[in-house]
Amino acid sequence: MHKDQLLQCHKSIVPYIHNTPILTSRLINTIIGAKVFFKCENFQRMGAYKIRGATYAILQLSDAQRAKGVVTHSSGNFAQALSLAAHSLGVTGHIVMPTSAPQVTKIGVQEYNGLIYECEPTLTARKATADEIAQKTGAIFIHPSNNLDVIMGQGTAAIELLETHPDLNAVFCPVGGGGLIAGSVLAAHYFGADCDVLGGEPFEADDAYRSLKSGKIEQNDTTNTIADGLKTVLGDKTFPIIKEHVHSIVRVTEAEIVSAMRLIWERMKIIVEPSSAVALAALVRDAKNHPNRYQDQKIGIIISGGNVDLKNLPF
Amino acid sequence: MHKDQLLQCHKSIVPYIHNTPILTSRLINTIIGAKVFFKCENFQRMGAYKIRGATYAILQLSDAQRAKGVVTHSSGNFAQALSLAAHSLGVTGHIVMPTSAPQVTKIGVQEYNGLIYECEPTLTARKATADEIAQKTGAIFIHPSNNLDVIMGQGTAAIELLETHPDLNAVFCPVGGGGLIAGSVLAAHYFGADCDVLGGEPFEADDAYRSLKSGKIEQNDTTNTIADGLKTVLGDKTFPIIKEHVHSIVRVTEAEIVSAMRLIWERMKIIVEPSSAVALAALVRDAKNHPNRYQDQKIGIIISGGNVDLKNLPF
Repeated sequence: MHKDQLLQCHKSIVPYIHNTPILTSRLINTIIGAKVFFKCENFQRMGAYKIRGATYAILQLSDAQRAKGVVTHSSGNFAQALSLAAHSLGVTGHIVMPTSAPQVTKIGVQEYNGLIYECEPTLTARKATADEIAQKTGAIFIHPSNNLDVIMGQGTAAIELLETHPDLNAVFCPVGGGGLIAGSVLAAHYFGADCDVLGGEPFEADDAYRSLKSGKIEQNDTTNTIADGLKTVLGDKTFPIIKEHVHSIVRVTEAEIVSAMRLIWERMKIIVEPSSAVALAALVRDAKNHPNRYQDQKIGIIISGGNVDLKNLPF
Repeated sequence: MHKDQLLQCHKSIVPYIHNTPILTSRLINTIIGAKVFFKCENFQRMGAYKIRGATYAILQLSDAQRAKGVVTHSSGNFAQALSLAAHSLGVTGHIVMPTSAPQVTKIGVQEYNGLIYECEPTLTARKATADEIAQKTGAIFIHPSNNLDVIMGQGTAAIELLETHPDLNAVFCPVGGGGLIAGSVLAAHYFGADCDVLGGEPFEADDAYRSLKSGKIEQNDTTNTIADGLKTVLGDKTFPIIKEHVHSIVRVTEAEIVSAMRLIWERMKIIVEPSSAVALAALVRDAKNHPNRYQDQKIGIIISGGNVDLKNLPF
């Protein structure tokens, strides 16, 4: 991917997304000993950065392709993102969701006019159902993360952050399927001035950490984490970019995630989902382990989303 | 109060407060059929507009007075506000708090270096304890709402809102002791262009509504509302201003408050306290009762604060 492609991607999705605000917290600056800039994708349309990649992936399709619709499988934010992006562009969105998907996500998909297809909660069933829909309808399959257009789209949040703060020393992202961090690290590569990108990942779903260690895509045996957006694993499109450019992955405990989430809720008065808190938790841990590493630096954090079930909070 | 006094008040507190952001929500605009602008004092220092009035009241004191400290009684945001304002200005803050005050508020006061004096949870005990401290220490008593300097300070949030949107047709505020709405209505009077100010009040603590009906300050027999900031009653400083200028008070049910709070949390992704949700609940109810009243208008809402106990949410 070239710089021009990223710029073109950003330009093309601007009419369909918010340039979300960047917030700061004096208390968090004091805790870290650095200036921390939160790119608030919880204020994005449908409540997460995922609308960026979903929109760009659809925009890259021909008119003939768009006429046949798009299909994905997701139990979370990408289900809502593709529904809304498709609806905004006059395209039919077919959404395969496991029966275990949260009720609140299903309602979101319906509100955004996505067509829901329920399946067994296994990756095999999800893929099979999506394949079947693609074959029947001709709809184009769009993977939630392992798709170069999606990756570029997700990187536009970091482009906007670096447009405002071109001298960031580092950017932290949560890592699930790797679309956000792969896009962000491309953005930092082309638009940053010596800006490292680090990932935050729960110990309970640390496939990316292990993948970088072993040099090949690792799976998760269990994914017992509150950060439900980070249970997925890297793919053959995201992993090579992450492997080449990402500085490191910092793993955090469940307690550290909840603590970071509480810090953001109580002090910044914004609603972020657990996956977003993972990025701050990673910075807090890394700053504690390396007391001088971030001293007086400027650090960006991508707050990935704010979709939580208010009936099911960890406080 | 003259226009110049309000401008001077605002100018003098600017170094000590945030000019908080103004947010919008397309969904809420659709629900109301108007453009709604939320002045987000939940992002204010200490999490509520109260720092404005507290700061201005202390700034009006002479050096000799400041040297003796300030005292107030409050179980809520003003306790934290006076503590922080006093600390910022190098003044000792004596804070009388009933034993029933939430733990989270007491912690906030301590963090801001306020000195806590516990008393029985009655207004008589609160006043007596504050009087005693004033007599012993010479500290100046600053009432949380019934004080002309406090009223002017609280009005500066509406001044900032009207600076950005001078053509607002109406502004909604929650009504407790009446400091916020009295200040806001003065701001609208001097800086608005035919801008009505309306209050939102729980049915369960509707003293202001009844006071406007009867023409004298009414009390609350019970205050069984989730909007814990709105249990207090008007005073001899706030009531005359409210009586002269406020358009009307709209009462809302507890269910309407929780519903408005959920709408803001889920859709705007910001944390607001129940008292703040009362203002939106009042607009929602009034727009429902008068379908054409707000059509295509521009309405401001003062989001008064975001201090909630995450362990005790109504969802």
